Amino acid sequence: MTAPLVERILARDPRAIARAISKIENDAPDANEILKALFAHTGRGVTIGVTGAPGAGKSSLVDKVALHYRSEGKTIGIVAVDPSSPFSGGALLGDRIRMQALANDSGVFIRSMATRGNLGGLARATVDAVAVLDAAGYDRTLVETVGVGQDEVDIVKAADVSVVVLVPGMGDDIQAIKAGIMEIGDIFVINKAEREGVERTERELIALLEMSERSDGWKPPIVRTVATQNKGITEFAASLENFAAFRRQQTASLERRASVAQNRIIELLRERLLRRALDEALEPGRLRELAMQVASRQRDPYSIVEEIAGKIQISSN
Amino acid sequence: MTAPLVERILARDPRAIARAISKIENDAPDANEILKALFAHTGRGVTIGVTGAPGAGKSSLVDKVALHYRSEGKTIGIVAVDPSSPFSGGALLGDRIRMQALANDSGVFIRSMATRGNLGGLARATVDAVAVLDAAGYDRTLVETVGVGQDEVDIVKAADVSVVVLVPGMGDDIQAIKAGIMEIGDIFVINKAEREGVERTERELIALLEMSERSDGWKPPIVRTVATQNKGITEFAASLENFAAFRRQQTASLERRASVAQNRIIELLRERLLRRALDEALEPGRLRELAMQVASRQRDPYSIVEEIAGKIQISSN
Repeated sequence: MTAPLVERILARDPRAIARAISKIENDAPDANEILKALFAHTGRGVTIGVTGAPGAGKSSLVDKVALHYRSEGKTIGIVAVDPSSPFSGGALLGDRIRMQALANDSGVFIRSMATRGNLGGLARATVDAVAVLDAAGYDRTLVETVGVGQDEVDIVKAADVSVVVLVPGMGDDIQAIKAGIMEIGDIFVINKAEREGVERTERELIALLEMSERSDGWKPPIVRTVATQNKGITEFAASLENFAAFRRQQTASLERRASVAQNRIIELLRERLLRRALDEALEPGRLRELAMQVASRQRDPYSIVEEIAGKIQISSN
Repeated sequence: MTAPLVERILARDPRAIARAISKIENDAPDANEILKALFAHTGRGVTIGVTGAPGAGKSSLVDKVALHYRSEGKTIGIVAVDPSSPFSGGALLGDRIRMQALANDSGVFIRSMATRGNLGGLARATVDAVAVLDAAGYDRTLVETVGVGQDEVDIVKAADVSVVVLVPGMGDDIQAIKAGIMEIGDIFVINKAEREGVERTERELIALLEMSERSDGWKPPIVRTVATQNKGITEFAASLENFAAFRRQQTASLERRASVAQNRIIELLRERLLRRALDEALEPGRLRELAMQVASRQRDPYSIVEEIAGKIQISSN
């Protein structure tokens, strides 16, 4: 059953790709088999993670650099990670209007990913979706995340090139976030660079960058853009390609890929174990019962978790 | 060994509290026993989760409402969740200067929590830390989170009262985030309300709130503040107390606590299982070896996780 789907994905059939990503999102029973079959075909394209504070104009930037790549004949995947309601579980930016020029282009595949509720797995599902696009042969896959939570950091760390987008003159929290995502930026973009305060933001950024030294010797460039006016996009694309080329030839590359792979194994394992424990260690309805006992303070959650963990035997070979 | 520590926590000894929270952060072997012993003493205070976009002035707001509560003689815990570097693992707002008036007040306990790297657990550790402060008898515990990731949502959902802080006139992403955190807000604050655009932000917020209807019938109030000038703080505190009173008397309260408890059990279980699998199913150094195999594309991560999961037996009783 999965073989034809895998073949269609490798032939870049958008419907097959969309279906595979839906299977990944919904944890369909054959999702893993599809990903296993596709794995050998990954690693040919370049995945670009784009993050930054809300309001930084990441979507415009992603759209414009996608158009730029299209003008060079490159095929493009775009994955937008959406903040979503913790209750409804729905995507809230899912209906954000992307540029028509992209939406109607068969060389572009666009997909939104949303949080899936308590069991988490957004980072895992997003990285899997990017792997599908990579295997499908898209030359560049852009992953856009809103926010600065751990999920976003995990997603951006899994990319080949990590871009941090800033805007001139925001408040103190931005400074902190800037520092927080500082070390994951291979390239820094100051978008909305026509605004007042751009010089100061750039100076602060340079100062921050000078304080930290990367083990790979790369000096992250700072690119000024006004995405809505298509300014600086060529320079931005050039810096993406520079870093991708740098990373490809550097000897530390395997080491870095191993650390990405290790995170990946941990993330997949975490989700798998939780799902199995909930399915296999607890009778249907039992979790709710236990939760009610905690809510009414008859029991504490720590001893409940110890009890569940006690049903699990792990062998070391 | 844990009994004296627990007694000292219940007597609100700040050093004992700080030590217990450090044990929680570091996953000390006796952390669980401490939490189990404290559990029966929790639920007396009110925990208030404060979230919102970066730059919204959450810290000032938290500081000012803490001072207000102090003027009423209430004891206050403050937990600031810091975005942190994914590589260094350190807290970046840890040294943010809080108001001296709070820092030197023995009726106030202030603590920063930071991300702890790949194994996650920030939400779990933060909720545990809040439980310690609650058991210690602080009347109000304010939890302040920066960002809008899943961790932040989990933390705020675990609070008795959830506050979403907005500022006038930010960009499109803010609209999306506003929607994303819309449903977790019991109270909405428009801070920096002296700024241009406050009317429009309030109108948009009212429109958004009218679209959604809460099952408990609560209509989230909108409070305007200028935290740095101490404006609107009394009204903010009053709305916090109103909602806490509403929640205490509502019949659906047990149901909601059960759903909080269920998330809690899942979060604790997730972390426990991963830790055990990494410790017990893999020889030291094996994870790194497997990661290298994935990095060099000799193996795929999905079959590795299947193999590890295969070493785990779960019994249903």
